[in-house]
Amino acid sequence: MRGKFSGFLLVPQIIFIVLYGVFVQYDVQAGPRNASDTTSSEHFDKLYPSKFLFQDVHVMIFIGFGFLMTFLRRYGFGSVGFNFMLAAFVIQWTILIRGCLDLEDIKDGKININLETREITNQPYVSITILISLRFLNADFACGAVLISFGAVLGVLGPIQLIVMAILEVVFYSVNEFVIAHKFQISDIGGSMVIHTFGAYFGLAVSLVHWRPELKDAHPKEESVYHSDLFAMIGTLFLWLYWPSFNGAPAAGTIIGERAVINTLFSLAAAGVSAFAMSSIVDKSGKISMVHVQNATLAGGVAAGAVANLKIGPLGATLLGSSSGILSVLGYAYITPAILQHMNIHDTCGVHNLHGMPGVLSGVAAVIIAKATSPTTYTTLELSAIYPGRVNNLDFQQQANLQLAGLAVTLGISIIGGLLTGLVLKAPFLGSVKHQDLFDDRPYWNSRARNQTIFQ
Amino acid sequence: MRGKFSGFLLVPQIIFIVLYGVFVQYDVQAGPRNASDTTSSEHFDKLYPSKFLFQDVHVMIFIGFGFLMTFLRRYGFGSVGFNFMLAAFVIQWTILIRGCLDLEDIKDGKININLETREITNQPYVSITILISLRFLNADFACGAVLISFGAVLGVLGPIQLIVMAILEVVFYSVNEFVIAHKFQISDIGGSMVIHTFGAYFGLAVSLVHWRPELKDAHPKEESVYHSDLFAMIGTLFLWLYWPSFNGAPAAGTIIGERAVINTLFSLAAAGVSAFAMSSIVDKSGKISMVHVQNATLAGGVAAGAVANLKIGPLGATLLGSSSGILSVLGYAYITPAILQHMNIHDTCGVHNLHGMPGVLSGVAAVIIAKATSPTTYTTLELSAIYPGRVNNLDFQQQANLQLAGLAVTLGISIIGGLLTGLVLKAPFLGSVKHQDLFDDRPYWNSRARNQTIFQ
Amino acid sequence: MRGKFSGFLLVPQIIFIVLYGVFVQYDVQAGPRNASDTTSSEHFDKLYPSKFLFQDVHVMIFIGFGFLMTFLRRYGFGSVGFNFMLAAFVIQWTILIRGCLDLEDIKDGKININLETREITNQPYVSITILISLRFLNADFACGAVLISFGAVLGVLGPIQLIVMAILEVVFYSVNEFVIAHKFQISDIGGSMVIHTFGAYFGLAVSLVHWRPELKDAHPKEESVYHSDLFAMIGTLFLWLYWPSFNGAPAAGTIIGERAVINTLFSLAAAGVSAFAMSSIVDKSGKISMVHVQNATLAGGVAAGAVANLKIGPLGATLLGSSSGILSVLGYAYITPAILQHMNIHDTCGVHNLHGMPGVLSGVAAVIIAKATSPTTYTTLELSAIYPGRVNNLDFQQQANLQLAGLAVTLGISIIGGLLTGLVLKAPFLGSVKHQDLFDDRPYWNSRARNQTIFQ
Repeated sequence: MRGKFSGFLLVPQIIFIVLYGVFVQYDVQAGPRNASDTTSSEHFDKLYPSKFLFQDVHVMIFIGFGFLMTFLRRYGFGSVGFNFMLAAFVIQWTILIRGCLDLEDIKDGKININLETREITNQPYVSITILISLRFLNADFACGAVLISFGAVLGVLGPIQLIVMAILEVVFYSVNEFVIAHKFQISDIGGSMVIHTFGAYFGLAVSLVHWRPELKDAHPKEESVYHSDLFAMIGTLFLWLYWPSFNGAPAAGTIIGERAVINTLFSLAAAGVSAFAMSSIVDKSGKISMVHVQNATLAGGVAAGAVANLKIGPLGATLLGSSSGILSVLGYAYITPAILQHMNIHDTCGVHNLHGMPGVLSGVAAVIIAKATSPTTYTTLELSAIYPGRVNNLDFQQQANLQLAGLAVTLGISIIGGLLTGLVLKAPFLGSVKHQDLFDDRPYWNSRARNQTIFQ
Repeated sequence: MRGKFSGFLLVPQIIFIVLYGVFVQYDVQAGPRNASDTTSSEHFDKLYPSKFLFQDVHVMIFIGFGFLMTFLRRYGFGSVGFNFMLAAFVIQWTILIRGCLDLEDIKDGKININLETREITNQPYVSITILISLRFLNADFACGAVLISFGAVLGVLGPIQLIVMAILEVVFYSVNEFVIAHKFQISDIGGSMVIHTFGAYFGLAVSLVHWRPELKDAHPKEESVYHSDLFAMIGTLFLWLYWPSFNGAPAAGTIIGERAVINTLFSLAAAGVSAFAMSSIVDKSGKISMVHVQNATLAGGVAAGAVANLKIGPLGATLLGSSSGILSVLGYAYITPAILQHMNIHDTCGVHNLHGMPGVLSGVAAVIIAKATSPTTYTTLELSAIYPGRVNNLDFQQQANLQLAGLAVTLGISIIGGLLTGLVLKAPFLGSVKHQDLFDDRPYWNSRARNQTIFQ
Repeated sequence: MRGKFSGFLLVPQIIFIVLYGVFVQYDVQAGPRNASDTTSSEHFDKLYPSKFLFQDVHVMIFIGFGFLMTFLRRYGFGSVGFNFMLAAFVIQWTILIRGCLDLEDIKDGKININLETREITNQPYVSITILISLRFLNADFACGAVLISFGAVLGVLGPIQLIVMAILEVVFYSVNEFVIAHKFQISDIGGSMVIHTFGAYFGLAVSLVHWRPELKDAHPKEESVYHSDLFAMIGTLFLWLYWPSFNGAPAAGTIIGERAVINTLFSLAAAGVSAFAMSSIVDKSGKISMVHVQNATLAGGVAAGAVANLKIGPLGATLLGSSSGILSVLGYAYITPAILQHMNIHDTCGVHNLHGMPGVLSGVAAVIIAKATSPTTYTTLELSAIYPGRVNNLDFQQQANLQLAGLAVTLGISIIGGLLTGLVLKAPFLGSVKHQDLFDDRPYWNSRARNQTIFQ
């Protein structure tokens, strides 16, 4: 894979550098400022909130997703290593692709880079059109989608295939996000549709195309050892701990953001308890499964995503969290095996249970809650951030319809995009994984270990 | 354990959901706000500090405590997994129990939820009565106490017993905190008495009741392997790193909070160096013990807890840190074995050395420092946050008496509560651990590992 | 090593405590404040930014450096443990030494301690003279230098030698930082010269003095196992994730700090992708090396360090990042073996490739960029923070000369200081490591593991 793999990384990297030189510039905030500008010190006070929540999201992408997938005993380097490679790549790629779709920026022919919301001093609530200027946060969100898809095909696709998948998925992801967030103006603060549902069904569609009969039976390397499961818990816990920041980051520093954090905290706690309880129920000897603890406990974060900034109340948040934890365990116990046996879709990490179903659940909850909204639920200021389309038109049935359409569009684009991408990845020069190398990263990795077989 | 374990989780979870629906609501900060409210943008600037220190505390509870206990070679899943389960459970339970004790809230029949101090705009220092409205921070602090007790009986109690212990301990914890913080108005910003002393002696009392003669001799599974000790270091370091946030969080964003952070930083650094030095001294061949590095280095955080916001100076902080590091190592070397042999108390993690003795040391230091306070030491504004009872009555001897009484009450409630709880846990249907399953989590856990014996 | 090792820790610790009592006090910010001081609530808003970036740097020092070095299969305790010990020691020592060099403080005979920049309310940009009052951030930066040097001699020096090395290195480090930052007033926000170049060449000089012929051939214990490489990835990722905070912390909360964060994010992403690509290119079978992924991906943070706050643009940042990633991999593949064979310098962690060469690259880039600066590039306010010497004298050629002189002084002091320190460490009573104990921490560590050979 020597020259080919490097080429698939270096050629895009060179293109990135050239395009960054031509099209990307600092936003005014990070750029020059007149020495007599008396508002500049004022600005500093506004700089922090999203920056700090961004750091938490950053940890989730690289530590969270990376270590969550290290549960496989022979694919630890591949999990945390390819996760790192893909995320570093996707951040740069998304800033370009997503920037091109940003009409406001295209006007002056440049993509503006900042860490912060613009003009936050002028309006206390962050409006959805401003959100997308948080380019690095947005890029990390795109990484989320790609890494979820990676989880579906972990150990089944090779590194060149993964890079090509990432290149294509970011395009589909950005189009979907642009359509449902900007055109439909749906509410999805934590990206349950945009990121989780999209990433899961995209990955499952790729996995369907790359079905191999030998995946039907338990593969001898598709298993964990004691310590690989402990490494995976590092990923689980950092995801669980920082998920409130993930759902709150797009509205950081506002009351809406605070509500998103509170609702997500409740939902995650309830999902955690419920997942432990269900895990024991579905086992015939009543044992708890590490697979469920590592994954289903996190479903509460996904389920809260599309409604975290809404007034669902502590009741709504704990109900949603408990339901998603239970749903996710049932998915691992019954739905994933059924999909494997009857639909020929192999899902290494069970992303359908952690991201797919809870994402759809959250999207459906967002439809119901939009419908139940009354004109007095939110102030105009809040509406401009939550449902910008409703500021001048208080028809909440229409918002519910748009939310449902957004969910349908997401499912459509992700599945079609995944199938097309899967077909592209069949190209023989992209290096498919040999049978004996499934769930084994040693064909791709060197280390200082002289005897590579000492540890599984 | 199939139905029983799940029932002990799900029944409370359903009760939580119902009670959350009836009694819990967003605080005004996270709720509606009039669009014409010109102070709302003002509010945003005040939102961040405790939120971010809360995140650090959150990491300490789930990663810190969870991984610290993974040192046992056969109890890694149990350590990090049950830690996760208990903390997710206790967060929800504490918000209810602690909320019921909050007279201010009972007045309007609701428990108000926020992440922030209330009315911070009106008073630069956070007063103790406001602190308790930081419900999630408070809930994480209760988790701290429960997880310390868990450390005392790690590998000795089964999962159902642990859940029941957590349910009962939160009640005793909340009563004790309410009495000494609200009635006595003692100063204990980092919870050295409220959390650490309480959690340690509660756990030791439970352990005494659950004494078994076979614990007297070294159990073959009560040991570490090389990598389990490295996993434990993840816990140690995140605890050590974020401890300044733990001690400073209740006064985040104020000068008092900053002083708490500075003092804790000094105390931890001094405890770190002293623990390494003492560890080598107590070993006959001069080697350093991982047990001491993992635990005694953290004693500086506990020892600073009750006095971190006081003017103890860099000298006081380093002295306290060094003393606690030395005391803790001596505890591991001499006191824990003596307690085991002569008092029939088994202390798996040595919580007496990390939390118990340093907590008492901190409580005693708080007595001495209160006594030495003069009317000019603090401004009235500071006094209202540190010693609210002294604002209108500058009798610091009385404050010293109250601090001592607070320590005594903590010891009393924790020991009596622990003994009673230990007796309840003897109930046969709570599933005590069989002899051959001590310090072994495999009876409770499944994983994707087909051969569960590959790794210890 | 019983009494000796403890003495080398405890005697300095006692001296620290005494000196802290005499010379160290809280800065006014953390100290008393008049109750009628109406500006105090104003102050609180300014407190957070550097505090939170400081936390990220703190994680990098203890988790980042500590776990990065756990790749050796038999030196995990030594890596993360001695890293912890040295950092706790160096923090206390640096506050004293660096404080003595701070003329402003010497005036009133005290070293003032705070977490924050002083007088930030009066000037929106942080000037370089104010930076040094961030004593804990500064102390963590000194830890960075010492731990880089530790990486060069990992497994080759014993613990007493390491303590003595740290004592001496902090002195040389502080003098160098004082000279180039204060006298020359160079720009080096992320410490590429002050920390990385200094630490690397100091460590290599020590390593040269401690050359042993048996290091020339691959030592049987100088290797990793699968899980030790995964532990190392914890270090890598936390370093990679928080590096933007490292480079931005000295100007936290300002537009300059934001630019430093953005440039570092770009540089790290580009270095990540380039390091993966080059790693495969330099391997004859095209495999990716864990050594490169663990280290060369981080070169982008070092390379951005001296120029992160400058207007290098997204183009400059990605170019610099890519170059450093490529340079670092080439260093591991070709330069480190050559230095080992021909110059008798053993570099266990390859600090020359991660810190040395990228640090020099960054220093050279800073010379070029200073030269290319025009009087209109920055406002006067920005200049006062970036190039304070240029506020009243816009001769940027002179700034370029000073930057070059700063790099030369750093190389000179680090190499000479390292050679002298290396000679001191030859003193026989400092306990050199026996041949059979190279890269093996078991002579220094105990644990609860009864059979120390179970793992490995």
